[in-house]
Amino acid sequence: MAHKSLSEIEIPHDRFEMRLSGSGGQGMILASVIMAEAVGADPTKNVIQTQSYGPEARGGASKADVVISTNEIYYPKALTLDLLLVMTQESMDKYYPDLKEGGTLIIDNVLVTKVPTDKYYGLPFTRLAREEAGHVMVANVVALGAIAALTGIVSHEALVKAVLARAPRGTEDKNRKAVEIGFREALKIIK
Amino acid sequence: MAHKSLSEIEIPHDRFEMRLSGSGGQGMILASVIMAEAVGADPTKNVIQTQSYGPEARGGASKADVVISTNEIYYPKALTLDLLLVMTQESMDKYYPDLKEGGTLIIDNVLVTKVPTDKYYGLPFTRLAREEAGHVMVANVVALGAIAALTGIVSHEALVKAVLARAPRGTEDKNRKAVEIGFREALKIIK
Repeated sequence: MAHKSLSEIEIPHDRFEMRLSGSGGQGMILASVIMAEAVGADPTKNVIQTQSYGPEARGGASKADVVISTNEIYYPKALTLDLLLVMTQESMDKYYPDLKEGGTLIIDNVLVTKVPTDKYYGLPFTRLAREEAGHVMVANVVALGAIAALTGIVSHEALVKAVLARAPRGTEDKNRKAVEIGFREALKIIK
Repeated sequence: MAHKSLSEIEIPHDRFEMRLSGSGGQGMILASVIMAEAVGADPTKNVIQTQSYGPEARGGASKADVVISTNEIYYPKALTLDLLLVMTQESMDKYYPDLKEGGTLIIDNVLVTKVPTDKYYGLPFTRLAREEAGHVMVANVVALGAIAALTGIVSHEALVKAVLARAPRGTEDKNRKAVEIGFREALKIIK
């Protein structure tokens, strides 16, 4: 294959870049792996999931990226985000500049209070996880349910399957409930 | 930043590419995340960890890549592997061609029986996990211990810390034991 220069690489219109960000303990990497597996179950889609560690990645903010395309993905790093999930104020401040104009911003609206735009979807993912799904640890999965409902990037069925495939034994019910809560609450705010 | 064409990108001599491969249930993604976190704890290292889903990634073989450099990593996909871990015959057959000449091949020598070279390190990771660490599920962590001992790419201490940070509650002992067994058995075969 002849390599193209990055500036010549045609970024297909169907390329969709998603970043899930928060703090180290919020399960953003696991959520990204689940999302990539759910989307990748569609045989027409190519998906690359990445995380970086290095000087720019240090500090409290944690991120994991998912790049989706119906074409081959030559360049797997996220360049300008179509969707950004932020679960902490620090990740809001750090990654908002990477969201493209018109991109979708989804926030935990209890944990993130300063938002530099009024165009966003806010839901209390962490509170919903704790109060309705049974454990704060599944806040990441509540967020995945909301992303699926808001974007249609993955079907409800494919997401549930991918979540359950990664749920530690004994946590299946909480995880299934978390997906449902995310879906339900997201549908309320887009109505 | 001016983008360079891929063919002009200088692949630094210090670039180290690692692929962990096996079947879907063998925890290769988790092992790669752990390895990336362990190596990335070193402030002089940049690490990118990726997995792909798509036509070429389908089938029974599962892989996850870790690219390590002391320089910025412009191109995060693994190109020619410096190290390949194979935990099944299918991943052996599929990914061996991606190992560079002189690269390090590490196999589960119970599960992989046909090896196209005599230059490799073989250990019964899965059997060691089951018989000595207490659960077959930590075979991936036994393999990480062996990789650390064989390559020195990460310190024993950093690896243990990263493993324990990802170990589900209640499995810390088995995981710690798994690292030790991998280290110990690898040191035996390089003596």
